[in-house]
Amino acid sequence: NEDDVFLVHFDTASSGFLGNLLVVPMDGSHWVGIKAIAQEMGRRGHRVTVVIPEISMRMGPGKHYDTVTYPVPYDKAHIDSIMSSLKDMMEKSSFTEKIRKGFSKMQKFTGFMHTTAESLLFNVSLISHLAQQNFDAVLTDPVAPTGSLIARKLGIPTINLLRGLPCSLDMKSAGCPSPPSYVPRFLTRYTDKMSFQERAFNTLVALLEPLLCRLLYWHFDQIAYQFLGEEVGIAEINIVILCQNRLDFTLEFPRPIMPNVVLVGGINCNVRHPLPEDLESWVSGEHGFVVFTLGTMLSDLPEETTSVFLEAFRQIPQKVIWRYTGQVPDSFPENVKLMNWVPQNDLLAHPGARAFITHAGSHGLFEGLCHAVPMVMMPFGGDQPDNAVRLASRGAGVVLDIYSITTESLLQGLNEVINDTRYKENMQKLSALHKDRPVDPLDLSVYWTEFVMRHKGAKHLRPAVLDLNWLQYYCLDVIAVLASVVLFFVILIVKCLKLCFWKLSRKRKQD
Amino acid sequence: NEDDVFLVHFDTASSGFLGNLLVVPMDGSHWVGIKAIAQEMGRRGHRVTVVIPEISMRMGPGKHYDTVTYPVPYDKAHIDSIMSSLKDMMEKSSFTEKIRKGFSKMQKFTGFMHTTAESLLFNVSLISHLAQQNFDAVLTDPVAPTGSLIARKLGIPTINLLRGLPCSLDMKSAGCPSPPSYVPRFLTRYTDKMSFQERAFNTLVALLEPLLCRLLYWHFDQIAYQFLGEEVGIAEINIVILCQNRLDFTLEFPRPIMPNVVLVGGINCNVRHPLPEDLESWVSGEHGFVVFTLGTMLSDLPEETTSVFLEAFRQIPQKVIWRYTGQVPDSFPENVKLMNWVPQNDLLAHPGARAFITHAGSHGLFEGLCHAVPMVMMPFGGDQPDNAVRLASRGAGVVLDIYSITTESLLQGLNEVINDTRYKENMQKLSALHKDRPVDPLDLSVYWTEFVMRHKGAKHLRPAVLDLNWLQYYCLDVIAVLASVVLFFVILIVKCLKLCFWKLSRKRKQD
Repeated sequence: NEDDVFLVHFDTASSGFLGNLLVVPMDGSHWVGIKAIAQEMGRRGHRVTVVIPEISMRMGPGKHYDTVTYPVPYDKAHIDSIMSSLKDMMEKSSFTEKIRKGFSKMQKFTGFMHTTAESLLFNVSLISHLAQQNFDAVLTDPVAPTGSLIARKLGIPTINLLRGLPCSLDMKSAGCPSPPSYVPRFLTRYTDKMSFQERAFNTLVALLEPLLCRLLYWHFDQIAYQFLGEEVGIAEINIVILCQNRLDFTLEFPRPIMPNVVLVGGINCNVRHPLPEDLESWVSGEHGFVVFTLGTMLSDLPEETTSVFLEAFRQIPQKVIWRYTGQVPDSFPENVKLMNWVPQNDLLAHPGARAFITHAGSHGLFEGLCHAVPMVMMPFGGDQPDNAVRLASRGAGVVLDIYSITTESLLQGLNEVINDTRYKENMQKLSALHKDRPVDPLDLSVYWTEFVMRHKGAKHLRPAVLDLNWLQYYCLDVIAVLASVVLFFVILIVKCLKLCFWKLSRKRKQD
Repeated sequence: NEDDVFLVHFDTASSGFLGNLLVVPMDGSHWVGIKAIAQEMGRRGHRVTVVIPEISMRMGPGKHYDTVTYPVPYDKAHIDSIMSSLKDMMEKSSFTEKIRKGFSKMQKFTGFMHTTAESLLFNVSLISHLAQQNFDAVLTDPVAPTGSLIARKLGIPTINLLRGLPCSLDMKSAGCPSPPSYVPRFLTRYTDKMSFQERAFNTLVALLEPLLCRLLYWHFDQIAYQFLGEEVGIAEINIVILCQNRLDFTLEFPRPIMPNVVLVGGINCNVRHPLPEDLESWVSGEHGFVVFTLGTMLSDLPEETTSVFLEAFRQIPQKVIWRYTGQVPDSFPENVKLMNWVPQNDLLAHPGARAFITHAGSHGLFEGLCHAVPMVMMPFGGDQPDNAVRLASRGAGVVLDIYSITTESLLQGLNEVINDTRYKENMQKLSALHKDRPVDPLDLSVYWTEFVMRHKGAKHLRPAVLDLNWLQYYCLDVIAVLASVVLFFVILIVKCLKLCFWKLSRKRKQD
């Protein structure tokens, strides 16, 4: 029985160490993992303080931690407008219009991140309050480097929880080599086996990454300078004391990592509750059901797309539970149930779940993986296309383009993953590998968080590569010197030979 | 209390999986770690078969595993003569004589390894007997690739337990990058922070490694061809399914590793017994005692060196327990006790242990680290000088040259580590870090061994880099093409400009 795979749940409270942790989280789906660790740390008896903006999408108080809030110069409507812009992207429009929309959405989003960070960092009374609390460490999500900056100001170590950063800043900060020959770059949708052209493009992307990092974190560099009073780039700030990546090599292609990176992918798939009675009775039936959610940022679709989906669902025997917050269409098939919120993990854990239609966000992906439900993936941005490629390359799901979806392509995708047993078999093998590990990911996260607090950092894990410039790192200086020495001797030998030859020929002439 | 650090001991028998494991071990100190895993696997209910030569130094039956022996064309005296040659190396002799001795010792040793491997591999009835046993996996020590060859013949996965191989073959086979700019090479005695000269030499060594590998494993390549009937290099054979390195980043400098490498350093330091009563009463005393062992291969020293040691011991207030199997000198100090065998780990665990004089073999090092005893290290070969540098760079011990040791240098070394409290403090910090980990190393070893058996390998952890040649790996082909394209355009532009200039100047002339 795959579900019986042994996981160790241990209680570090027995080690006697109780510390004081500051948590600086990110909003949206990023909140899920960090909240789980904050809760568990609190449950084990540590003092946990979570700093959140007064207005947010999902962040809020919990049973086992304290919250400290700070005012922000925006309201809920502003956040909603930023999030709903995703739906706009789905609307039919011209190419230039799409580019314009994408750029404006990006600008809005980064502006929102900067405002949030500034509201916290330049809240002088709050920062000085935090400084007096004698925290042992900061647990943070480094997509916005706010937590790292506070940690540096307070002189305490940082623990980063992240899925990955664009421009590979996370791997670079941790000192992990990422050879472009087999480590596919963010957004390329490549696997670890690349053709020559793919490898060439991947190498180009890798070469452009430092530039991308500077562009993405340019404004944060300014904020850092203002906040710390010293010139220090975000890439430098971000150098992790310990980095917990929500990766897992069941999904991720094998790549080098440094000992300061701990992999905790699948942090929250084990918590499971029975379905509410009405839902349980609705989903029961010989053909099972399909779970359909597109994540917290896209629960509403343009009317046209909605009808494409409904038309496909009408033609399958499975029931469909769809997380949908948009306008309810006039008529929809009997086998479809629209809900404002779905207990996604509990539904996927149900034995009747046949397929999972998802945007391939990392949380959903890990939940589907945990419960071995094959997927129809429709990524629409961020890390989602890359996530989807990883699962599809293992034969555990299919990828569809949500921007050009048709009833036929959706039907074909659903038909494949539900009726071709290979998808289910591959998914079950993958799920067994994923769940077979010595320590539960949440316990592992808590363990290393406590480790950093107990030992006041993890300096022994700091890679020496972080002190090398790129000339030194690639040994280009050594190669230059060695090449010069070789060249010197080659020239010397050539000169000698010429001289000998000249003398010899002169002697011959004299003879 | 440092000793209370929490370790999880879990019983995988509860996962219900019981398998069939073949173990192909190495002799000497290499036997210790692999025996511990074999015993524990057997204790948990797996069927474990250990294949050992009829004549060996230390290998033998155990309570929880079966042994199968095979005849070898040498006797115990031959093994003793190979091992005692270490003592010869200590004798005073001319430089050329030393080189000659070293080379002859090396030849004897590799000849012994080849003979042992051939005796097993070309024992047709034994190999066909093993082929019928339906083993799930082979656990082996890859210093001699015998186990890997059998695994390949039987078509089952390999689990390698190793400390490290010369010429970095272990890291190469696992696909781990080892940038020479901060990963010091075997035998260089460098740390991860190198000067330009050191980096240059380290790079040269790295460049010569493939050659060294070919030299070291040349005869095994022949054996492999004869045994498998296919042309396949040992480097290829050795590609690990899963590799359990007896490393630990408390000691090892942070370096990239791949997900198919599991670190299990300190596998056998937790087992601890009280001292025998007579020894307990002998070691007691206000000044504590010093533990002195030079490993299984060197328990006997030339008379001259012995008296250097005794003279130093006469001048310290601590008692000294010395593992010594040579001739007992006529008179020796009262505070010294010579023993044929010492319970090293139990002695180091005793609160009275003040210092540990060791050859810096990895087992002793981990035992000293486990019990936080500062060390005087006298490496004499193999990985020992590198081990010693690692511990000394953390300020937890001093390194002395055993070949030129004097009473004064020994006294100074002992005095430093015993009376300068910084050594003890550094050692305690290091020990706390070393022991603070979520899973006990032996449990972790057993877990991943079972993992490979349960899943019939760990193919999802196989790095794509193993399918690339070095041109592809370093993207030199991509760089060549990109450079050609750039060159083409540069030439094109220059030609165009020349043409324009020519036309322009002609026009001017015409005007």
